[in-house]
Amino acid sequence: MPQRVTVVEKILNANDQLAFENQQRLDAAGVFAINILASPGAGKTSLILRTIEALAPRLRLAVIEGDTAPVTIDADKVTARGIPAVQINTGGECHLDAVMFQTALPQFDLAQIDLLIVENVGNLICPASFKLGTHKTVLIASVPEGDDKPYKYPGIYRGVDALIINKTDLLPYVPFDMDYFRRGVEMLNPGLVTFPLSCKTGEGLAAWTGWLEQAALQGKQA
Amino acid sequence: MPQRVTVVEKILNANDQLAFENQQRLDAAGVFAINILASPGAGKTSLILRTIEALAPRLRLAVIEGDTAPVTIDADKVTARGIPAVQINTGGECHLDAVMFQTALPQFDLAQIDLLIVENVGNLICPASFKLGTHKTVLIASVPEGDDKPYKYPGIYRGVDALIINKTDLLPYVPFDMDYFRRGVEMLNPGLVTFPLSCKTGEGLAAWTGWLEQAALQGKQA
Repeated sequence: MPQRVTVVEKILNANDQLAFENQQRLDAAGVFAINILASPGAGKTSLILRTIEALAPRLRLAVIEGDTAPVTIDADKVTARGIPAVQINTGGECHLDAVMFQTALPQFDLAQIDLLIVENVGNLICPASFKLGTHKTVLIASVPEGDDKPYKYPGIYRGVDALIINKTDLLPYVPFDMDYFRRGVEMLNPGLVTFPLSCKTGEGLAAWTGWLEQAALQGKQA
Repeated sequence: MPQRVTVVEKILNANDQLAFENQQRLDAAGVFAINILASPGAGKTSLILRTIEALAPRLRLAVIEGDTAPVTIDADKVTARGIPAVQINTGGECHLDAVMFQTALPQFDLAQIDLLIVENVGNLICPASFKLGTHKTVLIASVPEGDDKPYKYPGIYRGVDALIINKTDLLPYVPFDMDYFRRGVEMLNPGLVTFPLSCKTGEGLAAWTGWLEQAALQGKQA
């Protein structure tokens, strides 16, 4: 009689299952978490530092830095501001996943955190396929990257809960058709909440930090 | 007596083998090929259009455009200049590989091409692991991405034959320490030939196109 073959679950489903467990753990501790995605150099760390500046007086923050290489450049900037940070080295991998996130969580005292910010690896493709267990996913587009990115990287635009358009201070110096960009976004993710801002000048930041604070407080109550 | 287990080759070796065959095919036809890597929005297409402008009068060019989505935005810009272009849709994949490159080659009359330019998918991580069979790999860094990219994405800097630093026209408007950037590059890839330039203003382009033309002519003679 032939043996039954057991088919193991495919990797994405296993990841989703673990992400679900991670979120339950965060919820139990009253931690609201966001996952920040962007291409390299779009301003993930700058946004996190600006967000710390605005929200640290009212919320207890913590940060997870995802990097492909064992350099602590970004994590050092966060801890220099007195905010606990954990770095995940992916060992060359192009994205964070739920296992890595699960491994990082015990490094924090979750009872002492209101808002956990995760900086994913700089990549507009792979991180879109791996949930971590965070409550919201935020994408940063950057003006000097050009206005055609929604059309060329649709997968990542489809799955996010908020969009930041960073480096608006460079709009006078680069070709960037805001209407064309926004039409692309609207096609992929209708009604997506969007924050044009400049981490350099600070313009537009209050709308973003206001939205995030609101989301975190509502998340904690839920 | 136990059966011998045949261990199949791991994917990267299979890819390398195919890349080797692709290069033999290009050499037999007298085609010199380059593979352009960069993060999204660093200026791959802009560089290709500027390179066409400079070299089309003297070399017969062709372009392969790698995209994760079925949009022909970049390929259309190339064909509008009278240069044959083939688009590879990776179907969401984050890089080109030797199989995709092999599939694209028969779309051209190779006997009519001196220089084949491949624009890889916008990604600073995954494309570094997959050879195509091109003769040189060129990386574009972009000034607004910031000066810490060699430290954070070392894998891609290690494997390239030339480096372009694009958008130098934005140097007055963004923080970018050129010495810090170059020290990072030198550590990973000593002596790497580097071309700071601006596809917008044209400054610095002649050094790049001169180097490429020379490399293509030498490659054809070899």
